[in-house]
Amino acid sequence: MGFREHLEEVVSRVDGALGCTLMGVDGIEVETHLTEAAGPDLRTLLVEYSTLLRLAREAAQAHQAGDLKELTIQTGGVLTVARLVTPEYFLAVALQPEGNFGKARYLLRITAPKLEAEL
Amino acid sequence: MGFREHLEEVVSRVDGALGCTLMGVDGIEVETHLTEAAGPDLRTLLVEYSTLLRLAREAAQAHQAGDLKELTIQTGGVLTVARLVTPEYFLAVALQPEGNFGKARYLLRITAPKLEAEL
Repeated sequence: MGFREHLEEVVSRVDGALGCTLMGVDGIEVETHLTEAAGPDLRTLLVEYSTLLRLAREAAQAHQAGDLKELTIQTGGVLTVARLVTPEYFLAVALQPEGNFGKARYLLRITAPKLEAEL
Repeated sequence: MGFREHLEEVVSRVDGALGCTLMGVDGIEVETHLTEAAGPDLRTLLVEYSTLLRLAREAAQAHQAGDLKELTIQTGGVLTVARLVTPEYFLAVALQPEGNFGKARYLLRITAPKLEAEL
């Protein structure tokens, strides 16, 4: 199962999912799968969020808070859940605000180790 | 009820809470209440997280995702939930990783409007 199939599976199993990406914390995508419901700016929003992952990782390390595991960003239009797969890559799913947040977190948790093994 | 009393109430009602802060997105604290269980670096960690709030707010606005509402950062040692009170100030609670995340989110949601009225 390739990266794309993993991303498609996450999106298909989460109600309200708009898209899913595997991306470096430098903002460079490995693979992204967006649904037709995704707005034209979702891809660039996710690229900008990569900066948050990088800064959160550095802040946690600098202040003895351990390794960054997960970041959730809720805005009026998009709920994004991101999980570090390795220190350099993260897996993120973007949902409609009323989407199934718990299912999204769960699927990221079980999918991340599968991607890690392939990275 | 002053800011400090609101922060103390949040901390007292959330199992595993390490501290609570009302802070500007520029990292300047209005009021912070830490428990004895908080590590020496928690205050500076929260100050660093203010940068994430600011960047997330700007990214969401720039990419038609609406207003930033909430940011959650989970690390190996600290789970932090932050909610914007106004575009310039946020309320955040830091918990032990096994702390009551749902209760923390709920209390931020009901406490934020009370603080907004006093800011």
